[in-house]
Amino acid sequence: MSVLVVGSIALDSIKTPFGNRDSVLGGSATYFSYSANFFTDVMVVGVVGQDFPQKHLDFLKKAGVDIRGIEVADGLTFKWEGEYEFDMNVAKTNATYLNVFENFSPKIPADYKRCDTLFLANIDPDLQHFVLKNISPSLMTACDTMNLWIELKRSSLLKLLKKINVLIINDAEARQLTQQANIIKAGAIIRDWGPEFCVIKKGEHGALLFSEEGIFAAPSYPLEAVIDPTGAGDTFAGGFIGYLDRIKKLDNVSLKQAMICGSALASFNVEDFSLDKLKQLSKKDIVSRYDEFKKITHFNDPGLDI
Amino acid sequence: MSVLVVGSIALDSIKTPFGNRDSVLGGSATYFSYSANFFTDVMVVGVVGQDFPQKHLDFLKKAGVDIRGIEVADGLTFKWEGEYEFDMNVAKTNATYLNVFENFSPKIPADYKRCDTLFLANIDPDLQHFVLKNISPSLMTACDTMNLWIELKRSSLLKLLKKINVLIINDAEARQLTQQANIIKAGAIIRDWGPEFCVIKKGEHGALLFSEEGIFAAPSYPLEAVIDPTGAGDTFAGGFIGYLDRIKKLDNVSLKQAMICGSALASFNVEDFSLDKLKQLSKKDIVSRYDEFKKITHFNDPGLDI
Repeated sequence: MSVLVVGSIALDSIKTPFGNRDSVLGGSATYFSYSANFFTDVMVVGVVGQDFPQKHLDFLKKAGVDIRGIEVADGLTFKWEGEYEFDMNVAKTNATYLNVFENFSPKIPADYKRCDTLFLANIDPDLQHFVLKNISPSLMTACDTMNLWIELKRSSLLKLLKKINVLIINDAEARQLTQQANIIKAGAIIRDWGPEFCVIKKGEHGALLFSEEGIFAAPSYPLEAVIDPTGAGDTFAGGFIGYLDRIKKLDNVSLKQAMICGSALASFNVEDFSLDKLKQLSKKDIVSRYDEFKKITHFNDPGLDI
Repeated sequence: MSVLVVGSIALDSIKTPFGNRDSVLGGSATYFSYSANFFTDVMVVGVVGQDFPQKHLDFLKKAGVDIRGIEVADGLTFKWEGEYEFDMNVAKTNATYLNVFENFSPKIPADYKRCDTLFLANIDPDLQHFVLKNISPSLMTACDTMNLWIELKRSSLLKLLKKINVLIINDAEARQLTQQANIIKAGAIIRDWGPEFCVIKKGEHGALLFSEEGIFAAPSYPLEAVIDPTGAGDTFAGGFIGYLDRIKKLDNVSLKQAMICGSALASFNVEDFSLDKLKQLSKKDIVSRYDEFKKITHFNDPGLDI
């Protein structure tokens, strides 16, 4: 079991109603890999600059993430500055400095090609195609995208959809991609375009899985305080993909469990800035939150008699 | 088992992206009573004008709803004109004609006082107090409200909360009432103010139940086309309250099942204008949709092993 993720590694400066952090560890590949690492072996391909603190690399490595695919390039690390107001579902970007990420060309160590699962985090669809040409995972390929690529690289993205097994995007992106206000219709359309499975993330309203077997709805874990939602989507993807890679099955039961694993990991992530909460987690915490999801959603014992 | 509902009976003119209807049957007490009637005996207290079509009264009576508490007053029936755009969560009111509803003074038939459950639909909190003074239901009192009363009659509403068992409101109202952006915190605050149970309806994102046992999250049933959301909240309340009154228990298991009954009924209601879809329903349809909710939400067989 092993997952290869290709995505961004960033230094984030974040402001929320609950405080702010300057230049903390972030990026889609970072959140994804730390989350998936609770379930399976993870290999990362990404790029950082000369300014990237060694402690962050040490942290990932010590956790067991295979970081040999992280290139340290000349220049500065990708930086994102953003803030959230009281509606924590919407991030406002104040500044983006692509730096070394601007010319990112994934360099994939030869032995990474043995991976069972590939996760193409939110990067240029052309780069996602490039990686897919070089990697043929035995279990599945999943990918994410964003509004920028839906707007600028729509045809490349639509071609990509024919080659992947799972698309994981948020509700606004699903609506933008399909030009459909109704999210249930949007999920069905995306599946028609290629991926056997589609996951639509709805922030505080949970996530929906679309498959041949129908729809599965995972709620978000009820939290009285969301401190920082940055990385929640990638943390979700890490739990979802990581669990599926672990059990190497894509049947309906496993997919539903994976949705809850993703939701559980994402719920921990938003409880503190950067990866601060995830760093403290044990597998026991994850199992315990998974069990809480049962209490929150299961209702049928005994059955209905009307 | 019997539920008494006090609320509005209206003639609605509605426009949605899927069509429009002029002067069709509506009102909180109407939707609630027809929905609850699938589960228990329902008595309605409300008022209509001389213009109210007899066929609507016949329809409710034929369905088994006790309509002796519907007063036919001099004047015209309460009318609402509204429309929905592609975001079906938000209704735009074009006109409201209170007519006979403006001076509504609930007249409660003597034998209605034997009811087990009382539902105070969205009316002036002072009127809700008035009804509560005259009725002492054996099982519970539930109530709804709206932005207008939260703004204009806040102190009357807060006093009411101390006297009821269940508050059922939507997410925007919960936020307005508690001045809390976080809906989980809002639910907890409302319970602190009195009601043992609080249900927060989130439209297409389902509904949350807050109780001493924690939170239960019911998703909305995934529909590719929502034709008309008018009355969905009252239809939900009808299923929720109707089921609880039927089984006469307020334990955690029953409350969760009631949440699904409410969600099932509401999901049918939005599939057509006015009560057109509800009219066609059988108990078998309701049980079948309830069972579909299981498939959409249950995930734990076997348990998680990580």
